[in-house]
Amino acid sequence: MAEPLRLGVAGLGTVGASLVRILAEKHNFLTDRCGRVIEVVAVCARDRSRERSVDLSAMKWFDDAVALARDPAIDVFVELIGGDSGPAHDSVVAALDAGKHVVTANKALLARHGTELAMKAEQNGLILNFEAAVAGGIPIIKTMREALTANSVNRVFGILNGTCNYILTRMEREGISYDDCLAEAQRLGYAEADPTFDVEGFDTAHKLAILTSIAFGTKVAVDEIYVEGISNITPADIQAAYDLGYRIKLLGVAQKTDTGIEQRVHPTMVPFDSAIAQIHDVTNAVAIDGDIVGQLVLSGPGAGGDATASAVAGDIADIAKSRPGQQYAPAFGAPAAQLAPYRQARMRAHAGGYFIRINVHDRIGVIASVATRMANENISLASIVQHTPAKQEAAKKQDDHQTIIMVTHKTTELAIRNALEKIGEDGHLVSAPQMIRIEN
Amino acid sequence: MAEPLRLGVAGLGTVGASLVRILAEKHNFLTDRCGRVIEVVAVCARDRSRERSVDLSAMKWFDDAVALARDPAIDVFVELIGGDSGPAHDSVVAALDAGKHVVTANKALLARHGTELAMKAEQNGLILNFEAAVAGGIPIIKTMREALTANSVNRVFGILNGTCNYILTRMEREGISYDDCLAEAQRLGYAEADPTFDVEGFDTAHKLAILTSIAFGTKVAVDEIYVEGISNITPADIQAAYDLGYRIKLLGVAQKTDTGIEQRVHPTMVPFDSAIAQIHDVTNAVAIDGDIVGQLVLSGPGAGGDATASAVAGDIADIAKSRPGQQYAPAFGAPAAQLAPYRQARMRAHAGGYFIRINVHDRIGVIASVATRMANENISLASIVQHTPAKQEAAKKQDDHQTIIMVTHKTTELAIRNALEKIGEDGHLVSAPQMIRIEN
Repeated sequence: MAEPLRLGVAGLGTVGASLVRILAEKHNFLTDRCGRVIEVVAVCARDRSRERSVDLSAMKWFDDAVALARDPAIDVFVELIGGDSGPAHDSVVAALDAGKHVVTANKALLARHGTELAMKAEQNGLILNFEAAVAGGIPIIKTMREALTANSVNRVFGILNGTCNYILTRMEREGISYDDCLAEAQRLGYAEADPTFDVEGFDTAHKLAILTSIAFGTKVAVDEIYVEGISNITPADIQAAYDLGYRIKLLGVAQKTDTGIEQRVHPTMVPFDSAIAQIHDVTNAVAIDGDIVGQLVLSGPGAGGDATASAVAGDIADIAKSRPGQQYAPAFGAPAAQLAPYRQARMRAHAGGYFIRINVHDRIGVIASVATRMANENISLASIVQHTPAKQEAAKKQDDHQTIIMVTHKTTELAIRNALEKIGEDGHLVSAPQMIRIEN
Repeated sequence: MAEPLRLGVAGLGTVGASLVRILAEKHNFLTDRCGRVIEVVAVCARDRSRERSVDLSAMKWFDDAVALARDPAIDVFVELIGGDSGPAHDSVVAALDAGKHVVTANKALLARHGTELAMKAEQNGLILNFEAAVAGGIPIIKTMREALTANSVNRVFGILNGTCNYILTRMEREGISYDDCLAEAQRLGYAEADPTFDVEGFDTAHKLAILTSIAFGTKVAVDEIYVEGISNITPADIQAAYDLGYRIKLLGVAQKTDTGIEQRVHPTMVPFDSAIAQIHDVTNAVAIDGDIVGQLVLSGPGAGGDATASAVAGDIADIAKSRPGQQYAPAFGAPAAQLAPYRQARMRAHAGGYFIRINVHDRIGVIASVATRMANENISLASIVQHTPAKQEAAKKQDDHQTIIMVTHKTTELAIRNALEKIGEDGHLVSAPQMIRIEN
């Protein structure tokens, strides 16, 4: 049997503690499956005295992640600190410089520094694994990087944030407001006290940036992503979507177009009978359109200590099954030095269907005026419906108004924005229009 | 760059021809991603003169797969012949004996001889890859064997046969009979002229046997599987399931129980809001319950030349990325020599919910009699509904009759069978009872 594989684990939060416990509990099981012993020989965390329900007594303690990363006693550095700078970044760089394989669950680090870290790993003949950085326990990185090696990907998209999906699921199921759902998610621990990073789409964007790079062989480009969150989605939008046969999901979408790559994060209407529409609560899912295989959809737990640790342990097991001298597969599928410069398609060139909901003053001719503005931009309507709100709703309002809901056939973002601007200038709108993109 | 990886491809049917074409079209793309050239240097098929739309001129031709498997000019033998004996079996054995890595899409071969082939591969330090043997383009083998290395699997189940799923989907969508759907599936090329292997569940059983071995670390045991097909499913079953909030799918299920492993293939009622219920037409899907990760669901194309070739190419790429001298991961996750003897749980001990539909003579007291027989077996009913068929239906019958539909809470197969036998002895039944298991 080969020599034991010695790990240094930096970060003993929920995921780190789960990992250390799992590696201990499954010691013999993993030894059988990997053909060698995997042992955690050193750990590092901010607070040594914190109770973690795992036995750390046999492990060397470090206060400094960088020192742990350089420790000659470890073969693999496992980074579970988080954050795109500071000790997480510095320790991963130090580990790669010191000839250690790296496993990380850090989406922010990969989204900001993925290309350069992959380059360093490949130059040094090391493995950089990060399955847990995207969609938690779902093996999406392995699937894209290995199983689909022969495929060119045309589009990858998914539900990458459990907090947003939980909120949208409850809004639909119970007809309650965004604010009430967010409060409930916070109470249950599914949302942070400051939820901005999740609900405004930034977490999804980090994960999408990593998938985009693997899908299209381009440098990681998180800052180019068009991002819209879910905080302006109302029960009325969800009901209108439902009536039209759609659900609203926060999707991250990366897609090849003629003018470059679209990377976008926004609330999206998906048809009921699509696989992605069936992903409820905190579950994540990723769909990949490959040129050979067609569409694959993977779903499962996108967060949580154990599910994330499962992915980290899988990454470690892959390293345990490898041997020194092997040439390792590139971190982003294509060799890092060959990753193409990223070219972002202009968002206004985005082509697709749109859902538009506007509240207008109840005047003669308003629907004709609105429809004319759409027609002037060459927008073809799949449906247009005009509602007068129920009496008790209307009674609350200063002014009688009506709701107009439109669904368009394929058009461009530019045309939609122009039409909405004109409709606004015409003075019909009671409030800002709602516009939600449709993904089929 | 490493030496080219030289393939011998045996079998040039739909999958083989797709593979050769893809490897040629993606030559540079794959060279970049694998760090070496992959080339098909030799092929073998039954009929050399057949038109295949691929250029074979640079490849050595073999009439005999065993001779190809032993050719010193190849590093990897790709078996796409099919069948569990004859040239497929003999050539794979010959390849492993001659020190060649093997990639195969052959479910029957793996289901019958998987344990011994894995043993031979591991003894000789060779890779045996078979992603395409189960669920076509879905990377279920890689996911279970690699990504979930740290997980003990409690249950794996899925829709593994596109023909059956296509028939059941159309029966539900259009309310037409099994026979009409089968004829349509045959017309469209989704079903064979003799559909027995697909519709009676044997194809699903072959694939399930492979998943079971990886899931539980047991020897492959296809002959132990309990198998029921879909040919006795009627539109009335599908409608009744629908009314209760279920869809009927042909599932292969492998599950740990106290008395052994249940491997079963049968029509199954799955709740609407489960991921598996949303898998339509020829699409396949597999759900895995891991002890750490929770539930993952993977869906995608389960058949077709290109989707299957995508999986074969992924297996080849994994070999291309490996290097001589590496210790390879075991074919079934656990080392073949350590695979435990398989112990089948008795089907009569299966515990779960059941759907029962019986047609009974329209007599006073029949429902009381039926309910009593169920109660005597300690079966708790979730619902019981008695229908008198609509007049025009009843008018066709010799005898007035009624339909009783029952859904049980969790009980055992033995209790259900006993109760149905007693109900039959009571003389109430107009026709054989229908019994469909429920999987949550």
